[in-house]
Amino acid sequence: MVIDERRFLDDLHTLRSFGASGVGRGVVRRAFSEADIAARDWLATRFEEAGLRVQMDPVGNLFGLAGGPSLLMGSHSDTQPEGGWLDGALGVIAALEVARCHRGVSVVSFQDEEGRFGGLTGSSVWSGYSALAEVDLHEDHDGVSLGQARAAISDRVGDPVDPAQFTGFIELHIEQGLTLDAAGEQIGVVTDIVGTRQIPITYLGQQNHAGTTRMDLRRDAFQAVSAFNERINDRFRNVVTPTTVWTVGHVALHPNAGSVVPGRATFTMQWRDGDARRLRQMEQIVRGTAQEIAAERDVAVSFGEMWELEPTHMDARLRGALEKGAAVVAPGKWRCMPSGALHDATNVARLMPVAMLFVPSIGGISHAFEEDTDEADLVAGVRVLGEAAQALISAS
Amino acid sequence: MVIDERRFLDDLHTLRSFGASGVGRGVVRRAFSEADIAARDWLATRFEEAGLRVQMDPVGNLFGLAGGPSLLMGSHSDTQPEGGWLDGALGVIAALEVARCHRGVSVVSFQDEEGRFGGLTGSSVWSGYSALAEVDLHEDHDGVSLGQARAAISDRVGDPVDPAQFTGFIELHIEQGLTLDAAGEQIGVVTDIVGTRQIPITYLGQQNHAGTTRMDLRRDAFQAVSAFNERINDRFRNVVTPTTVWTVGHVALHPNAGSVVPGRATFTMQWRDGDARRLRQMEQIVRGTAQEIAAERDVAVSFGEMWELEPTHMDARLRGALEKGAAVVAPGKWRCMPSGALHDATNVARLMPVAMLFVPSIGGISHAFEEDTDEADLVAGVRVLGEAAQALISAS
Repeated sequence: MVIDERRFLDDLHTLRSFGASGVGRGVVRRAFSEADIAARDWLATRFEEAGLRVQMDPVGNLFGLAGGPSLLMGSHSDTQPEGGWLDGALGVIAALEVARCHRGVSVVSFQDEEGRFGGLTGSSVWSGYSALAEVDLHEDHDGVSLGQARAAISDRVGDPVDPAQFTGFIELHIEQGLTLDAAGEQIGVVTDIVGTRQIPITYLGQQNHAGTTRMDLRRDAFQAVSAFNERINDRFRNVVTPTTVWTVGHVALHPNAGSVVPGRATFTMQWRDGDARRLRQMEQIVRGTAQEIAAERDVAVSFGEMWELEPTHMDARLRGALEKGAAVVAPGKWRCMPSGALHDATNVARLMPVAMLFVPSIGGISHAFEEDTDEADLVAGVRVLGEAAQALISAS
Repeated sequence: MVIDERRFLDDLHTLRSFGASGVGRGVVRRAFSEADIAARDWLATRFEEAGLRVQMDPVGNLFGLAGGPSLLMGSHSDTQPEGGWLDGALGVIAALEVARCHRGVSVVSFQDEEGRFGGLTGSSVWSGYSALAEVDLHEDHDGVSLGQARAAISDRVGDPVDPAQFTGFIELHIEQGLTLDAAGEQIGVVTDIVGTRQIPITYLGQQNHAGTTRMDLRRDAFQAVSAFNERINDRFRNVVTPTTVWTVGHVALHPNAGSVVPGRATFTMQWRDGDARRLRQMEQIVRGTAQEIAAERDVAVSFGEMWELEPTHMDARLRGALEKGAAVVAPGKWRCMPSGALHDATNVARLMPVAMLFVPSIGGISHAFEEDTDEADLVAGVRVLGEAAQALISAS
C-alpha cells in the first residue's frame, strides 16, 4: 500500500475538529481535557482499523502496537492552551498513515507534551526519567493535580508498554522556527535536539516607598534584574554561536506596584545549545554574573532548582534513512539542521535510537492559533517518513 | 489645658486595636472595612467628648467641627493592606489631642488615603479634584466599587462639609523615609510636597518559541523594558537632583513563561520632584527614550494615561508657626525638608493654606507591619502641633 495523501490530510483535519477554536486553524486541546480524551478515543479506533493493537499506558500515552519487534513513530496530540492544528498532531497522523502502509510500524501519541503538568510528561514517565507517583502531585494553573486529571481516563488505561519491542523511534514535527520557511525548503532532517538549562533566580532587596526613599539608599530588586540582563547579554558575546539562544521569559516583582520600590524579583533565565560543554560554561557565567550584580547592589541572590536537559544526538542509521527519503521526495529542498525545541524524542532517546524530521512552519509561528504549513509540505513529510520506514523495515 | 502625653499615646494604641494584625504593631484597616468603620465610630465618640460636632461627609471623611472659623488638623485612619499603626493614624489622634487643648481646632480623618479605590480618594473628592459620581465607579482588586463600599456607611453620612469655615490645614505624619532617623532628629517641617508623574508604558513585540527563534530574529518585549531602564538611568544623570526619585515598580510580561519570548510587556515609570519644570523635562526624556528603544528593537510602544500631581508649596505663615514650635520642643533636633510622599495635604491645598510636620520613621520603614517611631518622637510631634495651634489661634 502507498501513502494516501487525501486520507492523511482528511485525518489531520478530523483530529483538528476535537477542540477546534480561535482564528485560522486554532485548537484548544489541553492534556486530559474532554477534547483530548475524545481525540484519543477517535485515534484508538483509527489504530484498530489499521490493524494495530490499542494500549494506553498508566500516564495516558496511547499506543497502536504492530506486535512483535517494530519501529515506533508518532508524537503527541495534546495542545498548548492556545495551540495550532499541527504541533504534535501532524506526527501522530503521519505515523498512522505510515503504519497503514507498512507492517512493522507502531504508533504513539504521548500525553501532556505541552506541559499542563510540567512538560513532556507522558514521554518523561514512559522513559523512566520521572516517576508517575511523583508527577501525579504536579498541579496545573488551576490547582488540579495530574493524579486527579488521570481519573478521567481510569477506564481506558492498561499496563505499561514494554519499550523493548521497538527498534527505534522517529518523530515528524513542524519546525516551529523560520529556517525552512525562509529558505523555501520542504524538509529538515534533525541532527541534534539542543540541550536546555533553565534556572529561577531571585533577587531580594528592600521594599520601600517610591517617594521617600532616595536613589542612593535603594536596594531595588528590579534594577538588579535589569542590570543582570544587560550584563549577561554582554558576557555571552564571545561564548555563544549563532544558534545559541537565551531568554528571560518570566519576571515577577513584589509587591509589583507603581509606588513601591520592588523588594523582591524572581525571574527565569533559560539557555539552549547543542553542546553540553557550552551549556555548562553558560551556567557558570549566569551564576557568576547574578552574584556579581547582587554584590554590587547590596541585594541577596538565590537560585532555584535548575531544569536540565542534555543535548540529544539523532541515531545515524535512522537519520540516514530519513536523509535518503528526503533526497527522493524533496531533492534540493531539504537540509540537515538542529532542533531548537524540545520534543518527546529527547525522552525516548533514553530507551532506543531516535530520529526526527521537520516540515516548515509558515512565518515560524507555533504555539498560536495562526500556526500553519503548506499542505504540499505536510505531504512531503509523510512521504519521507514512509520512504524511511520501508528502507528500515526491509533492512531489518 | 495642656497636651496630655499619656492620653494621646493611649488613644493611639486604642486606635491600633481596630484591625491590629501581623508582627510588631501591624494594622489591617482598609477603607470601608469593618475595622475602618468601627474605628471611625470610636473616633466620632472621642470627637464629641472633646466638644466637637461630628459630621461625616458623603465620601466618608469624618470631621470633628469646632464651630465657627477654625484651624483644621488631621490626616487619615485607613491603612494599606499590610499597614503600620502610625501612618495616618498619628495625625488624626494628634489633632484630637490638640483640639482638646485649644478651642478653634477642628479635626478630620480623611477616607481611603491609601488608595483601595485609587489614592487620596476622600481628600480628592472633598477638594473638588474628583467627582464622587466618577470615583464611585472605581473598583478595588476584588471588583467591589467605591459606590458599593459606601453603602456600609450610608446611615452615618451627612451633608458635604463647607471648607470655607477653615483658616488652614496642618497634617502631622511619619516621615516614611530615613532622613530624620539617620540624622537623629525629632521633627521635620515640610517645605514642599513633591510632584509625581506616573505613566504605564507598553512594548509590543512578537511572542515566539524560546528554543526555535534565533536571537537576531527576536522582537522581545522584556529586552525592550530592560534596555529602556538602563538608558533612562543614564539619560537622567544630568537632569536630576539628589532628591529626585524614579521607579519601575510594576512589570507585567505576556505570556510570562520561561520558554516563550515575551511578546508584550507593560510597566510603570514613575518620577517625583519638587520642581514642576523638571517633572516636564523628565517626561520628555521618558517618552523620547521609550520611542527610541522601540525604533531600535522593532517593537511598538504605547503610553497609557499619565497620573500627574503638581508640587505643593507649604503656606509660609503655617510653616513659620511649626518652625517656631519645633525650635521650642526640639531645639537643634529639627530641620526643614521636602516630602517625597504624597499626602492629603496635597489635595487640601486646593482649598486653603496647608502645612505639614514629620516625625522620624525607624529605619525609614512604612507601609509594612514593622513601621514604628520612638514614643518620645511621637510626643514631640503632638507638642509642636500644640505650640503651632496656640500661636496661630491667638494671632487670629
